[in-house]
Amino acid sequence: MASNQPADPIPIAQALIRCPSVTPAEGGALGVMEAVLRPLGFTCTRLPFAEVDNLFARIGTEGPHFCYAGHTDVVPPGETGWSDDPFSGLVRDGVLHGRGACDMKGGIAAFVAGLADFLRANPNPKGSISLLITGDEEGPSINGTAKVLEWMEANGQIPDMALVGEPTSQTMLGDTLKIGRRGSMTARIALHGIQGHSAYPQKADNPIHRLVRVLHRLTAEPLDQGSQWFEPTTLQVTGFDVGNTASNVIPAVARAMVNIRFNDLHSSASLTERIQAALAAEEARADLEVSCSGESFLTEPGAFVDGLQNAIRRATGREAKLDTGGGTSDARFIARYCPVAELGAVGAKLHMVDESAPVAELRDLAVLYRHVLEEFLG
Amino acid sequence: MASNQPADPIPIAQALIRCPSVTPAEGGALGVMEAVLRPLGFTCTRLPFAEVDNLFARIGTEGPHFCYAGHTDVVPPGETGWSDDPFSGLVRDGVLHGRGACDMKGGIAAFVAGLADFLRANPNPKGSISLLITGDEEGPSINGTAKVLEWMEANGQIPDMALVGEPTSQTMLGDTLKIGRRGSMTARIALHGIQGHSAYPQKADNPIHRLVRVLHRLTAEPLDQGSQWFEPTTLQVTGFDVGNTASNVIPAVARAMVNIRFNDLHSSASLTERIQAALAAEEARADLEVSCSGESFLTEPGAFVDGLQNAIRRATGREAKLDTGGGTSDARFIARYCPVAELGAVGAKLHMVDESAPVAELRDLAVLYRHVLEEFLG
Repeated sequence: MASNQPADPIPIAQALIRCPSVTPAEGGALGVMEAVLRPLGFTCTRLPFAEVDNLFARIGTEGPHFCYAGHTDVVPPGETGWSDDPFSGLVRDGVLHGRGACDMKGGIAAFVAGLADFLRANPNPKGSISLLITGDEEGPSINGTAKVLEWMEANGQIPDMALVGEPTSQTMLGDTLKIGRRGSMTARIALHGIQGHSAYPQKADNPIHRLVRVLHRLTAEPLDQGSQWFEPTTLQVTGFDVGNTASNVIPAVARAMVNIRFNDLHSSASLTERIQAALAAEEARADLEVSCSGESFLTEPGAFVDGLQNAIRRATGREAKLDTGGGTSDARFIARYCPVAELGAVGAKLHMVDESAPVAELRDLAVLYRHVLEEFLG
Repeated sequence: MASNQPADPIPIAQALIRCPSVTPAEGGALGVMEAVLRPLGFTCTRLPFAEVDNLFARIGTEGPHFCYAGHTDVVPPGETGWSDDPFSGLVRDGVLHGRGACDMKGGIAAFVAGLADFLRANPNPKGSISLLITGDEEGPSINGTAKVLEWMEANGQIPDMALVGEPTSQTMLGDTLKIGRRGSMTARIALHGIQGHSAYPQKADNPIHRLVRVLHRLTAEPLDQGSQWFEPTTLQVTGFDVGNTASNVIPAVARAMVNIRFNDLHSSASLTERIQAALAAEEARADLEVSCSGESFLTEPGAFVDGLQNAIRRATGREAKLDTGGGTSDARFIARYCPVAELGAVGAKLHMVDESAPVAELRDLAVLYRHVLEEFLG
C-alpha cells in the first residue's frame, strides 16, 4: 500500500526553507535538490557563474523535452516582525511557514513530489524532464537563468517547452495560467538648458520647462489600449529632480526617470525611439540612458497552452484564465528559446513578513504538476 | 571764488566706502551721513529696528517735500579676487574703487554734494528736503525702508515725491529713468499623490504626472504681452524635485518652485488665484505656499516724471528713456505712499568684484541731482 501513497512535498519544502539562500547565497538549497533528484535518476550539473550557483538536472535524453524552471534564492526576510524564525520551515495549523514557502521553494517541492509520482507511474516516460534551478531570480538575474540557458544551448539541452513555477494563481490553485509578461524598461533623461536669473529668462533656457513639455508629450495620451492578450502599456514618470534651492535661479539641468511596462505592441527599441522623438520635438539637448530589464513576451495559445489547460482542468476542475499581468520573471529569458508558461501556487503572501503557504495547496499543486507531466510525457 | 566751486562728492563717497557696512552692519556710515548733513541744517533721526540702523534727515517743514532714498549697506565683497582692499575708497586713474562705489555710496555722496550746492544757491528753498537712508536694502528689507516709512507716516513726514538713487543708468548717465518695477513672487507647490508600484499605476496616483500637467498649464502660454510701460510678465519654474531613486516606485509627493516677475496687469493675489485654478483644473491635492517680495508698481508719467526728465535734459542733454525693468528695489515700499522714481549712476560694476565708479560720472551725477532739486524746489 505504501507505494500508492502520493509523494509529500512538505518535507522537501521544509528542507529547502531551512537553507538560508537569500540571493546570491546558495545556502545548501541546491544540495537538497541534488539529494532528492539523483535517487530519481537525474543527472545533476552545478553551473556556477560569478557569485551565483545554479543547477541543471535532467532525466532522459529523448524528446519531447519538458523543462521545469524555478529558483531557490529568496528575498531577505527583512528586519522586523516575523512571528517565527523565517528559516524554520515550521508547519502549524496546516500552514507551512518561512521565507520561500510561497515564492518558490514550496512550488519546487511540489514539482519534485509530482515528478516522483509521475516517474513511479511512468518508469519509462516517452520524453525527458529537466529542472533549471537558479540562485539569481530575486537578484540582478544576470548570473542565473540567462547564463544557464546559454550553457544549455551550447550543450544541446534546449527543451521543447518550459513551465516556470512562480506563484501565479490568484485566489484558487489553477485559476490562472500566465502565458506572457509585459516588458519593463527605465529611461533616464538629463535635459540641458542654460542657467540664468529668473528675472531675465530670455537670457537663459529653462530645462524644467522643456522637460515638462517632453513629459507632457509622453504622458498626455495612453500608449495603447492593450492588445489581445495584454493590458495597456503603462508609462510612469517616477523621478524628476533639479536640486535647485534658489527661487530666482533658472537651473542648468533637469533630470527625469521614466519607467515603462510594455505589452507586445512595443519593444524597448521602439519606446526609446518614442522618447527620442519627444525630445527632438521640443528641441531638447539631452542625455538619454535606457535600461531594459526584459522585453515583453507571449506564448501564443496553441498545443502547449492547451495541454496545460487540460492538466489544470483534470487536476482542479478549474478553467485557467490566460494572463499576462504582473512584473517580470525568468520566463522572459526562456521565451527566447522555446514556448514557456508560468503556473504555480497562490502568491498571496509572496515577499511578505510571515510568508507562508497552506499545506493542502502545496499537495494539490504536486498533483497538478503530475497531471502536467502526464499531459505531455505520459 | 571758493564759494563758486561745486561741492565734491568724492571725499564723501570715500568716507562712506571706508565704513565696512555690509548688511546689517551700520559700520559708521550713518555717522558719516549725520556729520555731513547736520552742518547743512538737517535734523537727523536715527531709527534702529532690530539689528538694522536707519537714518531720516530733513531740512524745512513746508511742502513740497522732496525725499531722496538710498542705502548705505553693501553686499559682501566676496572671498576672492579684489585688486585692492574693498573698503579702501582708493581713487586711481580717475576711478573710485571699493564696495558701494556704484551701489550706492557713490550715489548718496553725489546727492549730498548736489544738495549742498543747491542749498548754497537757494538758502531758503520753497519746500523741504529729506533723506531716507537705510541699512537694510541688500538684506531681507524688513527693518529698513518699510519700517522707516511707517515711522514717517506716524510722524507726519510722508513726502510729496521721492527719488531712489539706485544706479539705473544703462550706458550713459541719465539715459534711463526708472518709473516702476515688476513685482516678484515665489510659489512653492507640494502635490500629493498616492505611492505605488510603477507596474500597477491604476492602484496609485502619480503626483509627477499631475504636477507636469499643472506646470504645462502655467507655462504653455505667456501670461501677457507686456503693458504700456512694462515688459511681459515672466513665469519660471525654478525647482522640481521628487527625491525618488527607485525606478519602479511611484512617489507620494512632487514639489515645484515657481518664480514670477509680474507687471502691472497682475498682482501676487491674482497670480496665486491663477496657480490655484491650474491645481484645481488638474484636481490636485496640493499645499501651496506663496511669498511675495514686492508687488509691481508704476509711477504714471505726469508732473513728477516730467520734472525729472527736464532736470536730466538740462544736466546731461539726454532724453531719459522711461523704464520698468530689473529686479526689486526699495522703491516698491515708497510707492505705497507717494510718487517715486529711480535715477542714479551707470550700474555696470554693481555687486561685482572690483566694484568702482568713474570720478567724473559721480561729479556729473551731483550736478544732475542739483538740477532735480532746482526743478522741484528752486
